[in-house]
Amino acid sequence: MLEELKQRVYEANMLLPRHGLVTFTWGNASEVDRESGLLVIKPSGVEYERLTPEDMVVVDLKGKKVEGKYNPSSDTATHVVLYNRFPEIGGIVHTHSSWATSWAQAGRDIPCYGTTHADYLYGDVPCVRNLTKDEIEEDYEGNTGVLIANEFAVREKDYIATPAVLCKNHGPFTWGKNAMEATHNAVVLEEVAKMAARCEMLNPRNERAPQTLQDKHYYRKHGANATYGQK
Amino acid sequence: MLEELKQRVYEANMLLPRHGLVTFTWGNASEVDRESGLLVIKPSGVEYERLTPEDMVVVDLKGKKVEGKYNPSSDTATHVVLYNRFPEIGGIVHTHSSWATSWAQAGRDIPCYGTTHADYLYGDVPCVRNLTKDEIEEDYEGNTGVLIANEFAVREKDYIATPAVLCKNHGPFTWGKNAMEATHNAVVLEEVAKMAARCEMLNPRNERAPQTLQDKHYYRKHGANATYGQK
Amino acid sequence: MLEELKQRVYEANMLLPRHGLVTFTWGNASEVDRESGLLVIKPSGVEYERLTPEDMVVVDLKGKKVEGKYNPSSDTATHVVLYNRFPEIGGIVHTHSSWATSWAQAGRDIPCYGTTHADYLYGDVPCVRNLTKDEIEEDYEGNTGVLIANEFAVREKDYIATPAVLCKNHGPFTWGKNAMEATHNAVVLEEVAKMAARCEMLNPRNERAPQTLQDKHYYRKHGANATYGQK
Amino acid sequence: MLEELKQRVYEANMLLPRHGLVTFTWGNASEVDRESGLLVIKPSGVEYERLTPEDMVVVDLKGKKVEGKYNPSSDTATHVVLYNRFPEIGGIVHTHSSWATSWAQAGRDIPCYGTTHADYLYGDVPCVRNLTKDEIEEDYEGNTGVLIANEFAVREKDYIATPAVLCKNHGPFTWGKNAMEATHNAVVLEEVAKMAARCEMLNPRNERAPQTLQDKHYYRKHGANATYGQK
Repeated sequence: MLEELKQRVYEANMLLPRHGLVTFTWGNASEVDRESGLLVIKPSGVEYERLTPEDMVVVDLKGKKVEGKYNPSSDTATHVVLYNRFPEIGGIVHTHSSWATSWAQAGRDIPCYGTTHADYLYGDVPCVRNLTKDEIEEDYEGNTGVLIANEFAVREKDYIATPAVLCKNHGPFTWGKNAMEATHNAVVLEEVAKMAARCEMLNPRNERAPQTLQDKHYYRKHGANATYGQK
Repeated sequence: MLEELKQRVYEANMLLPRHGLVTFTWGNASEVDRESGLLVIKPSGVEYERLTPEDMVVVDLKGKKVEGKYNPSSDTATHVVLYNRFPEIGGIVHTHSSWATSWAQAGRDIPCYGTTHADYLYGDVPCVRNLTKDEIEEDYEGNTGVLIANEFAVREKDYIATPAVLCKNHGPFTWGKNAMEATHNAVVLEEVAKMAARCEMLNPRNERAPQTLQDKHYYRKHGANATYGQK
Repeated sequence: MLEELKQRVYEANMLLPRHGLVTFTWGNASEVDRESGLLVIKPSGVEYERLTPEDMVVVDLKGKKVEGKYNPSSDTATHVVLYNRFPEIGGIVHTHSSWATSWAQAGRDIPCYGTTHADYLYGDVPCVRNLTKDEIEEDYEGNTGVLIANEFAVREKDYIATPAVLCKNHGPFTWGKNAMEATHNAVVLEEVAKMAARCEMLNPRNERAPQTLQDKHYYRKHGANATYGQK
Repeated sequence: MLEELKQRVYEANMLLPRHGLVTFTWGNASEVDRESGLLVIKPSGVEYERLTPEDMVVVDLKGKKVEGKYNPSSDTATHVVLYNRFPEIGGIVHTHSSWATSWAQAGRDIPCYGTTHADYLYGDVPCVRNLTKDEIEEDYEGNTGVLIANEFAVREKDYIATPAVLCKNHGPFTWGKNAMEATHNAVVLEEVAKMAARCEMLNPRNERAPQTLQDKHYYRKHGANATYGQK
């Protein structure tokens, strides 16, 4: 069932430790098949060295396990909510990568200080608030997804243009058109988080990159008038 | 004698440089066999590249060497005291890993700023005071163990829930149900120490993660109601 | 056409990820053949793992593509302007290397704090201002080159003695007598940027290295009286 | 001539890039043969990948080249002075390793904040002042050695107990009983420099480790009553 998708999700997961984004089992990647309404995700707590494509777990968009010998990732409910609320995305990645997590622990949005950021992430990367005690007790993982989607709605941010978020005192989620692009964005986010921290250290009153520069770089890579690469 | 245990302790020790926690010979792992009352520990000052399972040293719970061609680690007395005072633990690791040691040198507890910390270490990681001149002269390594155990008693901290400590101006000790888990916790502690330092840099007035979030993550992984992984 | 040059430019490009200066496709190296008035540059957005010498693109000094199956780097216009304005240089490198980019994002020149800097880069490394909205809209990449060259003219800086610049909120460019030397200078710049940031952290009121020491080191390696190496 | 010594000096030099202490050719190791009064040192500006034991250069204790196809390191005169002024040492290493150099660029001694430092380096690591214009013009490299030796004399520091120094706005020198021990101390110094910087970041009013703790660790590893290792 969904063998090709399992292979792709497996490969995206395996890139996470290779890019230095994941220690032990602290991360997971998933991809959804919009036609069948099923998503494939990493099993919970299984070591990367032991992982095989067959170990991937199939879950439906209500969060019910459909196939797999293992339990799905403990963050599955967050993925499910995001796939439902963000209909244009195809893949999601969660890590505890150290610079992005440091911003999350600091409870701060990552300001757009430069073109590396603007090339991939339109505007600041939002950091959502903590869940309340009631929200945690009711459905911690599901409500994490709800909180993320609501934050984008309230701030009127386009989730396609800004495919990343930080959860306060927790860590980052990124997404994209498939699991591989979500993984790519997780690498970008970590690099951007690192450089933003260091440039604040060098200039504590640092200001964001000018909006015209941000737009120039974002639209050089995205949209109808993109000129970057080999289209 | 205790060949399997020696093999396990050897493997745990060899993971320390592989995880980047140890430079030269600055670290040691041990594991105790509660039935025989014997512990196996790395020899003192032997390079990791030359180490073999047979080089491991057997010591009793009074700190007396029972078998081995080498002297045991210079920190053996600390391990012995901790095994006696913390009857539920099976393995101990000591390193000079750089972020955890930086906190130890700064003389500060590591506050719980996020879920990476809460997943493994309940509440702040304590930093114990310096030993006095008399305590150092009487029995430096043994009194280090006494100080650690007393600190957990005075603060009423559960050593099972918080399997890590910092010794002021020195470095970290971690423990677990065996040497491998203690090694695992040493990696966690280093990662947590790094991210806590960086998030303070990003937000000098940073506050701890809410207690409800800490509890959610800790009990998602530990205790009767744990849901993480493949039980 | 220009096969040897393509090979050299290919090799210089491949060194960028190997030295940790480039994530994904975020960098490019070029070299000019002054006789024919043609330059060879990396194609835009092609992954380093897939790159071959034949993929390199040939462009003339007006920025027109002369040969190659791919589009040239999106930064080609900047390279072209620099080759025209800096007639003594033969190679150019652009990266988003993390420490140099952090200084660029902070909008600051890198002060010369030590001999590592002085050995290669005479005086501070300038950070040029942002382009205006009009300059961006007219010709972003070309005007980036104009701004760099003008800055060296206005500051009366010798571009041979200081083969590096930062573009505000963007990143560094370095150059040299060929692509390999430009790559070498990109590594130097990153190392110098890292140490300058750290020494400000250690001493927030840090002052530049004395001019006599800067001169001693620069002229130990450069010019008629150089004594370093094996001439 | 001195083939075994050349081999040892070659091996010590090759460890410098392997330990991440040296970029390009920015470092050199030497060892002296006290009987013949000759020292062997790395050639100037030769890449580590191309280096062979035969490339090592033989110099006498007046700084005169005795054998070798290459010029000796540009820092040879500093090594020569140190061998003359510090009669008990057998090996010297100079690098631009990044944390130690950051302290040197900040013009600060490295305070002894912990046992990692105290295990190898007794008390603070001194940072010597800049040379004056006259001292630079007269004999830059030789006077660097004179300044180091004088600093130890003025501060009444034992160069055997503290085998490391920082030169302001330049970088570190370390030494030991042979080239390998000097290399070992260069690794220690870099690690100690890193952790000292980070612990000041965590606690800007940090104080030195208590003298009794420093003494305990130093004398656990050194002198007649040492207990560390396998003597």
